Amino acid sequence: MTAMDLHQTLPAPLRIEADYLLETVIDPRRAAEIMAGEQSSGTFVPVPGETPELKERSAARIERLDLLDDAVDAPSLPSAGTAPSARPRRARVTLSWPLDNLGPSLPNLLATVAGNLFELKPVTGLRLLDIRLPAAFAQAYPGPRFGIAGTRRLAGVEGRPLIGTIVKPSVGFGPAETAALVATLCAGGIDFIKDDELQADGPHCPFDARVRAVMRVVNAHADRTGKKVMVAFNLTGDLDQMRRRHDLLVAEGATCLMASLNSVGLVGMIELGRFSALPIHAHRNGWGYLSRHPLLGWSYVAWQKIWRLAGADHMHVNGLANKFAEDDASVVASARTCLTPLFPDKPCLAMPVFSSGQSVRQAPGTYQALGSTDLIVTAGGGIMAHPGGPAAGVAALREAWEAAVAGIPLDAYARERPNLQSALGAAA
Amino acid sequence: MTAMDLHQTLPAPLRIEADYLLETVIDPRRAAEIMAGEQSSGTFVPVPGETPELKERSAARIERLDLLDDAVDAPSLPSAGTAPSARPRRARVTLSWPLDNLGPSLPNLLATVAGNLFELKPVTGLRLLDIRLPAAFAQAYPGPRFGIAGTRRLAGVEGRPLIGTIVKPSVGFGPAETAALVATLCAGGIDFIKDDELQADGPHCPFDARVRAVMRVVNAHADRTGKKVMVAFNLTGDLDQMRRRHDLLVAEGATCLMASLNSVGLVGMIELGRFSALPIHAHRNGWGYLSRHPLLGWSYVAWQKIWRLAGADHMHVNGLANKFAEDDASVVASARTCLTPLFPDKPCLAMPVFSSGQSVRQAPGTYQALGSTDLIVTAGGGIMAHPGGPAAGVAALREAWEAAVAGIPLDAYARERPNLQSALGAAA
Repeated sequence: MTAMDLHQTLPAPLRIEADYLLETVIDPRRAAEIMAGEQSSGTFVPVPGETPELKERSAARIERLDLLDDAVDAPSLPSAGTAPSARPRRARVTLSWPLDNLGPSLPNLLATVAGNLFELKPVTGLRLLDIRLPAAFAQAYPGPRFGIAGTRRLAGVEGRPLIGTIVKPSVGFGPAETAALVATLCAGGIDFIKDDELQADGPHCPFDARVRAVMRVVNAHADRTGKKVMVAFNLTGDLDQMRRRHDLLVAEGATCLMASLNSVGLVGMIELGRFSALPIHAHRNGWGYLSRHPLLGWSYVAWQKIWRLAGADHMHVNGLANKFAEDDASVVASARTCLTPLFPDKPCLAMPVFSSGQSVRQAPGTYQALGSTDLIVTAGGGIMAHPGGPAAGVAALREAWEAAVAGIPLDAYARERPNLQSALGAAA
Repeated sequence: MTAMDLHQTLPAPLRIEADYLLETVIDPRRAAEIMAGEQSSGTFVPVPGETPELKERSAARIERLDLLDDAVDAPSLPSAGTAPSARPRRARVTLSWPLDNLGPSLPNLLATVAGNLFELKPVTGLRLLDIRLPAAFAQAYPGPRFGIAGTRRLAGVEGRPLIGTIVKPSVGFGPAETAALVATLCAGGIDFIKDDELQADGPHCPFDARVRAVMRVVNAHADRTGKKVMVAFNLTGDLDQMRRRHDLLVAEGATCLMASLNSVGLVGMIELGRFSALPIHAHRNGWGYLSRHPLLGWSYVAWQKIWRLAGADHMHVNGLANKFAEDDASVVASARTCLTPLFPDKPCLAMPVFSSGQSVRQAPGTYQALGSTDLIVTAGGGIMAHPGGPAAGVAALREAWEAAVAGIPLDAYARERPNLQSALGAAA
């Protein structure tokens, strides 16, 4: 009995589905059967007790397999026993599992859809492209508590992106220097400020002292102007540290926290999602090692679903014309997926965060690609190195987005706007 | 001022070091400088406040750079703006950071040594080969609470490997069927049994019912024989689930728990390490997506240090002649590193766990390569599909290890031992 024989024994909503890009030196269907067996009731030697009934109840099955025409000259990934001259084939494969194999558990889901199958000997390339989850997962996990609407409400920004920046230098400032910079940025009309992901709780810039110094500035500015700037403080740390830091943020009146997904990990993020009274700004640093090879690891489409369901309100997606290796098409696909519902009655939308080398130049292209202003754009050097200072940098970025939304070319819009004009000159 | 100018401004023990294999289409030293800047006080545009004093205090620096002779025909990883015909160069690079940039925090360490640098545009390959941590990390984290000595004491096994198996089929048995298999294995003299990592808390095999049924068998066997078989129950789940399951394991007299590292993540594992009263059997499923490309991601040498410090007592290392893509040299290097001290006065040794296609055949090679019996060997089909049944499979594996330790060829040792004899036949 093969996995295919069991097709349609359970209705689709009670099964978990995962799509893969597969490259293999054996028959792709046979490779998919090995994947399905390895990740459910099969083993490499038949064992007692592996009855047809057990397989019908528990086996993963191949829902779909489409051979791809890609000409592949050599294996993308080395494998013991596979000649470098082998000519692999590629396929797009959908596997499914009964929900009852594991129950609606995100950590156990990872071991099922992204466990030992990347190492299978005949597999010379495997990338998890997408996952689809039964509604039981929507009931088991909170999803973003704030999302787009909650973030806009707390930041007091409607109808346009949140304009933000990252405290730079990434690390090295003390609390007073950080607060002084935040004061300048607040005065300049910024909406959002974040710690760099390298900023933690070192003795030169302890978390508590930084939060107190920065929130004094932010609260004073809010008292004066009615605008509370959203600051995402990086509370990444051990669980007890994150709890304590969270409580301090709440006590000081902060409106956001930041955590590095790959540092905290899934169980820590689920826990943070459950106890946090603030929007979670989720940083994806380390994403490169999960995704950089096109035939290995995770697509962002699959990966971000896990974190949104765990409670991430803001998800980093890099930015157009960024300083990293990722091309624009990939950035756009990542941003769009954050704005695509996870479940019909529980969309779990997260606000995509554009960063890395962002300046006024990217506003029109970003708006055109996304068709939405539900995003956060953070410009580091683009704001803080503006010839007229950070306040002029903030103004220029707001103007660039006004132009983008109105469909007016930046150069034309800049004619009467010197801040945008000099930003365009600086970013040329 | 470059990173190199700052060399030797702080004594080594107060700095974190990381070794990388770097491939780049630009001058490797320039690429290393970009890595150091990106991961500490630098940014891609000079900003106000980035003073020489700040850099001296906070900058990462290049400790060492050795160009490699590898002929590289094409970039290993695609990068926006890099021609596929580019001829990159490779180097081995050591960077260091002041401990004070982050403090002794494992989650923040990840963002520093394995954060955004895998995505840098000129980088067409980057693998984290090793990390070295200041002693402050040894004080901040518990390391394995049981390790080799504690595991041996609880399992009652000295002077030889723990002989174990995995419940197979991986998923599909209910509690009663699982307990019946465990009873057979106990009677066969096994030392160690683990859940498959796919086994969770589904309705066909709820965690609590499985634990109670299995521990009834294990405890009864211990009462009769004095030997308590160590069973690693997979408690992977959300934090509250893991706490509750842990407490049940303790209450039922279990002597081990299992958790999937990539499912739980770092903060969850640190928390588990702090509250667990049982040895932590750490499963590495998903390791393939972190490591499968030789110019991307993590080496096991670097990766396992994080988890040992967080508290992992047993670390999976695959096995010789395994069914996966990994070659034997890599398996041996992984196993040896688990038995290499992390700190002079806090070795944090973890017991390497050999698995995947393991049979009597691998015993001599494994012993020769490791020079130690401080390991767990788990054979799935190798034990349960033995022609004489699981008890004969266990006996054969113990005999194979006796032969390996005594330096007697398996065939010779098998002459008077029918169980080993038929295992050799089955594994041929």
